[in-house]
Amino acid sequence: MRSFQRGALDLRPVTLTPGVSRHAEGSAQVEFGHTRVLVTCSVEERVPPHLMGKGTGWVTAEYGMLPRATHTRSQREAAKGKQTGRTMEIQRLIGRSMRAAVNLSTLGPRTLTLDCDVIQADGGTRTASITGAYVAMVLALRTLHGKGTLSKMPSLTPLAAVSVGVVKGEVRVDLDYDEDSSADVDLNLVATGDGRIVEVQGTAEHQLFDRKALDAMLDGGMAAIQQLTVAQAQVLG
Amino acid sequence: MRSFQRGALDLRPVTLTPGVSRHAEGSAQVEFGHTRVLVTCSVEERVPPHLMGKGTGWVTAEYGMLPRATHTRSQREAAKGKQTGRTMEIQRLIGRSMRAAVNLSTLGPRTLTLDCDVIQADGGTRTASITGAYVAMVLALRTLHGKGTLSKMPSLTPLAAVSVGVVKGEVRVDLDYDEDSSADVDLNLVATGDGRIVEVQGTAEHQLFDRKALDAMLDGGMAAIQQLTVAQAQVLG
Amino acid sequence: MRSFQRGALDLRPVTLTPGVSRHAEGSAQVEFGHTRVLVTCSVEERVPPHLMGKGTGWVTAEYGMLPRATHTRSQREAAKGKQTGRTMEIQRLIGRSMRAAVNLSTLGPRTLTLDCDVIQADGGTRTASITGAYVAMVLALRTLHGKGTLSKMPSLTPLAAVSVGVVKGEVRVDLDYDEDSSADVDLNLVATGDGRIVEVQGTAEHQLFDRKALDAMLDGGMAAIQQLTVAQAQVLG
Amino acid sequence: MRSFQRGALDLRPVTLTPGVSRHAEGSAQVEFGHTRVLVTCSVEERVPPHLMGKGTGWVTAEYGMLPRATHTRSQREAAKGKQTGRTMEIQRLIGRSMRAAVNLSTLGPRTLTLDCDVIQADGGTRTASITGAYVAMVLALRTLHGKGTLSKMPSLTPLAAVSVGVVKGEVRVDLDYDEDSSADVDLNLVATGDGRIVEVQGTAEHQLFDRKALDAMLDGGMAAIQQLTVAQAQVLG
Amino acid sequence: MRSFQRGALDLRPVTLTPGVSRHAEGSAQVEFGHTRVLVTCSVEERVPPHLMGKGTGWVTAEYGMLPRATHTRSQREAAKGKQTGRTMEIQRLIGRSMRAAVNLSTLGPRTLTLDCDVIQADGGTRTASITGAYVAMVLALRTLHGKGTLSKMPSLTPLAAVSVGVVKGEVRVDLDYDEDSSADVDLNLVATGDGRIVEVQGTAEHQLFDRKALDAMLDGGMAAIQQLTVAQAQVLG
Amino acid sequence: MRSFQRGALDLRPVTLTPGVSRHAEGSAQVEFGHTRVLVTCSVEERVPPHLMGKGTGWVTAEYGMLPRATHTRSQREAAKGKQTGRTMEIQRLIGRSMRAAVNLSTLGPRTLTLDCDVIQADGGTRTASITGAYVAMVLALRTLHGKGTLSKMPSLTPLAAVSVGVVKGEVRVDLDYDEDSSADVDLNLVATGDGRIVEVQGTAEHQLFDRKALDAMLDGGMAAIQQLTVAQAQVLG
Repeated sequence: MRSFQRGALDLRPVTLTPGVSRHAEGSAQVEFGHTRVLVTCSVEERVPPHLMGKGTGWVTAEYGMLPRATHTRSQREAAKGKQTGRTMEIQRLIGRSMRAAVNLSTLGPRTLTLDCDVIQADGGTRTASITGAYVAMVLALRTLHGKGTLSKMPSLTPLAAVSVGVVKGEVRVDLDYDEDSSADVDLNLVATGDGRIVEVQGTAEHQLFDRKALDAMLDGGMAAIQQLTVAQAQVLG
Repeated sequence: MRSFQRGALDLRPVTLTPGVSRHAEGSAQVEFGHTRVLVTCSVEERVPPHLMGKGTGWVTAEYGMLPRATHTRSQREAAKGKQTGRTMEIQRLIGRSMRAAVNLSTLGPRTLTLDCDVIQADGGTRTASITGAYVAMVLALRTLHGKGTLSKMPSLTPLAAVSVGVVKGEVRVDLDYDEDSSADVDLNLVATGDGRIVEVQGTAEHQLFDRKALDAMLDGGMAAIQQLTVAQAQVLG
Repeated sequence: MRSFQRGALDLRPVTLTPGVSRHAEGSAQVEFGHTRVLVTCSVEERVPPHLMGKGTGWVTAEYGMLPRATHTRSQREAAKGKQTGRTMEIQRLIGRSMRAAVNLSTLGPRTLTLDCDVIQADGGTRTASITGAYVAMVLALRTLHGKGTLSKMPSLTPLAAVSVGVVKGEVRVDLDYDEDSSADVDLNLVATGDGRIVEVQGTAEHQLFDRKALDAMLDGGMAAIQQLTVAQAQVLG
Repeated sequence: MRSFQRGALDLRPVTLTPGVSRHAEGSAQVEFGHTRVLVTCSVEERVPPHLMGKGTGWVTAEYGMLPRATHTRSQREAAKGKQTGRTMEIQRLIGRSMRAAVNLSTLGPRTLTLDCDVIQADGGTRTASITGAYVAMVLALRTLHGKGTLSKMPSLTPLAAVSVGVVKGEVRVDLDYDEDSSADVDLNLVATGDGRIVEVQGTAEHQLFDRKALDAMLDGGMAAIQQLTVAQAQVLG
Repeated sequence: MRSFQRGALDLRPVTLTPGVSRHAEGSAQVEFGHTRVLVTCSVEERVPPHLMGKGTGWVTAEYGMLPRATHTRSQREAAKGKQTGRTMEIQRLIGRSMRAAVNLSTLGPRTLTLDCDVIQADGGTRTASITGAYVAMVLALRTLHGKGTLSKMPSLTPLAAVSVGVVKGEVRVDLDYDEDSSADVDLNLVATGDGRIVEVQGTAEHQLFDRKALDAMLDGGMAAIQQLTVAQAQVLG
Repeated sequence: MRSFQRGALDLRPVTLTPGVSRHAEGSAQVEFGHTRVLVTCSVEERVPPHLMGKGTGWVTAEYGMLPRATHTRSQREAAKGKQTGRTMEIQRLIGRSMRAAVNLSTLGPRTLTLDCDVIQADGGTRTASITGAYVAMVLALRTLHGKGTLSKMPSLTPLAAVSVGVVKGEVRVDLDYDEDSSADVDLNLVATGDGRIVEVQGTAEHQLFDRKALDAMLDGGMAAIQQLTVAQAQVLG
C-alpha cells in the first residue's frame, strides 16, 4: 500500500498556505504529504547586467534544504562553502519554470527571486517547490500591483509540477522518499493545467523505458498537475 | 508603546513547539514574537578528532537565516560560498551555551548538532535559538535514552537566553528589530533560571554604559530568563 | 538552409576518432559538425566511500569547456574557483547515462571517470560528450580485459545522445549553436539504438509544447540515435 | 605563582612601541608579557557602499596570527582559504571597539583599517590588539591632521582592554596562555579609564558564575584598564 | 637512447599547426614530441583597471591541463576550486614572456588572453606553450589588423622557449617526462632567435650546478630556440 | 646615489637575529635594509602522504606579507580566501631552496615548515626569506639534535639568496623597492658561498638581456651571496 493509502495515480494530501512570511512580497508554504517547502518571492528593483536597459524583468530561483530536512543530517552547504550539483540543477529548473509562467517583458526592470527552502523532505521537493513558487510569485505580483508599482498585472501561465515514476512495474504519481529511492524510472513534469509541457525530465534509474511507459507517465502526471493547478487557483481566489 | 503592548521588562509572546521534525532525534520551533526559529538536534555516533578515544561526547551548533527571513533579502550564504562573521559568532555562542547545559562526559562518544535556522527574523534570533536549542537537545537525549542508546539521561543544566538593551534611556528586555536597531546598548544574556551566568555579551552601540546600567540590564535579563526556563520546563513536562 | 546543407532531421557530419590519448585507458574524440569534444576514460582501483566493500564498481563523469571553445571567451572555471550550475548539470547527466550503459556489478571495485572536455563548441556539446563517452568507456574496458584486470567484459547497453528542438515551427535534430539559441523548445535525448530511453530532458525555451510536439521530437531523436549507435559500432569494430 | 611573579590583579609587563612601520599612517607594537601584536592603521580615501554620500567615515579591523605564533603550528588561514570563526569574532570585536573610540562623523569620508597581527601568542591577544590599536589609530589621525587632510583632530574616547578570569577559584587579571586554558570563567573587558564599558564578554568555560563573581571580575578589569590607558597616554604624549 | 632517437642537443619533432580554432582571433596547436598544447588568443576591448586611460594594452595568459593529459589522472582544478601553485607559476611565466614579445603601447586599449591548454603531456608543457603562444598571438594581431581594428601591426620580438637539463651528467635539450623526472638540473629558457634572454629559470633538482654547467645549458638552449623561431617563422609565412 | 649610500654591488645593511620566537623550534628575523622578514621553522613528526614509509623527511615553506608591509595596504589573503600567484611562486622557491640545503634522507620521517612572514617590505623579500630560512632551519635542527630527537645533525649545504638587476644600465645587487620597480632586468639567485647555483631566475622586465649581462649579474650576485653566507655562519657560531 502507498503512503496515505492512496492509489497509484493519486497525489499525497496537498496543502498550500499563502502569506506565511511577514517580510516577503509574496510567500507560500507547500506540503506534498510530509514534504514541506517554504517559498518566498522577493522583489528587487534591478535586473542582471545582461538585461540592463532592455526594459524587461527577470525571475530567478534558489533552492536549499535545511541540514536535517532529511533522514540523516546533510552537511550545511553554507558551511561547506559550496552548493551541490543537485542543488544547482534543481534551482535552475525552478527558475526556468517560473520564467515560463510570467511574461518577463511585462514585469518592468525588476527581479523576482524565489527562495525555496525545504523544511522537511520526503520526496518531490523540486515539484513541490515549483508548485508553491507559482503561488508565491502571483502573490508578490499582486503586492506590486496593489502598491501601484505595476500598473497592470503581468500576463501569467498557471503551472505546477509533479514527479512520476515506475515503481515495481507500476506507474505512480507523486513519489515519496521510499518510492523515489527504489523507482526504476523517475520523471519530473512541469506543465499547465491544460496539458502543455514546460519541462519534462525522465531518467532511467535502474531500467530503461520505452515510449509507451513514457506516455503512461505523462498521462498520470498531466492528470495530477491538473489537480494541482486547481488547488493553486483556489488558494489564489 | 512597545510591540505586543508590553512593558519595558516584558518578553514578547513566547511559543515553544516541540517535535516539529519527523526526522530529527529532537526538535523544536521557538517563537519570540515574530521571530521564528526551527531547531533540530541531530545525533551522530562519532566525535571530532581531538576527542577520539577520550570517552566523552561533543555538542556543536550551526546557525543560518533563510534569505528572506529579514526585511530585505540577504544573499544566501551557500550561494556566496561562505558564512558571514555574524553567523560564525552566533553559532559559536550557541554551541558554547549548549555544552554548558549538558555534562559532556556522560554523553558517550557521540556528537549532537543543533541546527538553528531562522525562518523569520524580528530581533533576538540568537537568544531564541539558544532557548529552543535547549528543548531540542533534551528531546534528543530522551530519544537516545528511550532507545537504550543512553542507559541513563545525562545530567542537565536548564538554561535560556534573552536580549536586553538600553533604548531611549530605558532598560528593555527582548528587543524586536526596530528596538535593536536603535538601541544604545545591546546585551545578550545566557543564564540558568536561578541566576547563574553562562555567557554575557554587552556592547555599547551608540553610547558607553556604566556598571549601574549593566546591573539594571542583568536584573531585567535574569527575570526574563527565569520565565523562559519555566516555559521550557512546561513543554518538556 | 541548415548548416552542412542538411534536412531538418539530419545529423551534422559525425566523426568518432578512437584512441586519441597516449595515457588514458580509453579515449575518443567526437565531432558533431564543428562541435569537438575530447573524451578520456580513466580507471582507478578504488570506489567512492558509499560503495566500499560492496564489490560493485562506479562510473562518473566530469565536463569542462576550454575558455575559448565558444564564440566569446568564457572565464576559466579553475580560475574562478567554481564550476557553473550548467557544468554540474551536464556532468551529472553524462555520469548517469554512462552508469546506465554498463552493469556496475560486473566492473569490480574500480571507478571509471569520463572526462569530457569541449575543445570547440557549436551546440550539442552534452550529446556529443555522451556519444563519445560510450566509445571511450568501451575502449577502456577492453584495455582492462586485455590486461586481464577484468576476466570478462562487463555487459554493455550501447547508447548515444542527440539534441532535438523546435526551430521556426519545425522539428529539427542536432541543433547547432545558432539554432539552439533561437529554438522554441529544446530537448536532449539519451537512448539506445532500439528505441529505449535512458534520459529525456525537454524544455520550453520560448513556447510551451504539447504531447504531439514531444512525440515528433522523440521520433526525430530516436532515428538520429539509431544512426549514432551504428557509427559507434563501426568504430568499436 | 603567576608568570612574571605578579599578584592576582596585576598586569604582565606592558610595552607599547609606537611608529614601528615605515609605511603605515600609524602603527604600534604592543606586548602583554610574551604576547606580541603588531598593529598598523591604514587610511583609505573611500568608505563602504552603505556610507557613501553620508559624509561620515568608517573604522574596521582585521586580525591574524602568524602560523607559529602559538605553541604548535596552526594552519595558515590564507592557505586554507578561509578565516576561522575565532578570527572573525575577534576582528569584529576590535572593529566595534575602535568605532566606539572615535567620532566617525568627524573623520570625513575615509576608512581606517586596523590590522592586528599576532607575532607571538601567550594569552590575551584580542585585548592586547585593542589596547595597541587605539595607539595606532591616534597616531594615524595625527598623521592626517599633520598633513592637513583633517583640519582638526576627531574627538576621541581613550579605551583599552584586558582579560579577566576565575582561575583556581581566584579572580585574576590578564591571563597568560596556561591560565586561560584552565580558567573556569573567562571575561574580556573593553572600557575607558574612567570606568565606562565599551564591551563586556564573559563566558563560563567550566563553571557557571554568579553576579558577585562578575562584579569581582569587573572590578579587577577596570583597575587594570585604568593602568593601560595611562600607559597609552604616556606613549601618545 | 633518447626518445625519437635523437642526440643530446636535439629537439623532439616539433609541429606548429596554426588556425585550429574557429572562434579565437588567433590559435595554434603546438607539439613537442608527444606533448600537445592547444593555444588560443582571445581579444577583448578592455584593459585591467590599473591600465585604464593610459592608452596601452595588456597581454595575459592562463594555463591548464586536461585531467588525463598525464600518466595518471589529476584532479580537475575547476572541481577542486583552485589552481595549483604550479599552474599559477607557469601562467605567470607565459604571460611575462608574451608581454616581452609585443610592444604593449602599440596594442591600443585591449587585452589579449593566451589560453594554453595541455591536451597531452610528456614534459616541456610550459616551453611548448610559450612557443605556440607566440604564433597564436601573431595570428590574432593579424586578424585585428586585417579587420582594421589595428591600423598597423604592433612591433614584435619573435621568441620561443625550450627546457634544458643535466641528465646522467649530460646536458640535454627538450626533456621528455622521463628525463625531466630524473634530471639533476632543470632549466627553462625563453629567448629570441638571436640569443637575447627573456627569461631563464634554472633549478638544482638533485645536484647543485656551477657556472660552467649553466653556460653549457644556455648554449644548448639557445641553439634549440634558434630552430624553434625558424619553425615559427615558417608557419607565420 | 643608492639607498644607504652604497655602491652598485653592495648589499644593504644585513641583520640576522636568531631565536626571535619563544615557541618555534628555530627562528630568525632577517633584515635587508628596510625589508624585514620573520622566519620560523616548525617541526612536525609526520611526512606528506607520498613520502610515508620511505624513511625520508620533508621541508616545505609558506610565505605571507602582512597587509600593510607595503607602501599601500594590500588585501589580506586570508580574508580574500586565496593566495596570489606571486605568493605561491615565492613559497615554492623557498621550499625548493631549503630542500637543497639539507639532506632529506637524514631528517627522519618528519616535516620542517618554514614560515616566512614579511613584516615590512622594501624589495628583496624572497631573497631575505631564503637567507633567513637557512638560519632558522639550522637552529631547528640543532634543537632536535639537542633533545636527542636527531641522533646526529643532518648534512647541510649552506646557502643564501640575493636579487640582482640592471637599473639605468648598471648591474646592481640587492635592489630596494624603487630600484626593483624600475629595473630593466631582475634576477634572483640562490647559491652557496663557494659559487654553486641552487636556483637562478632572471626576467627581462623592460629590456631583453644577453649572456654578457647575465654573466655580470651572476658575478655580482655570487660575491654578495658569499658575504651573506659569512653573516649566516657568524650568527650560527
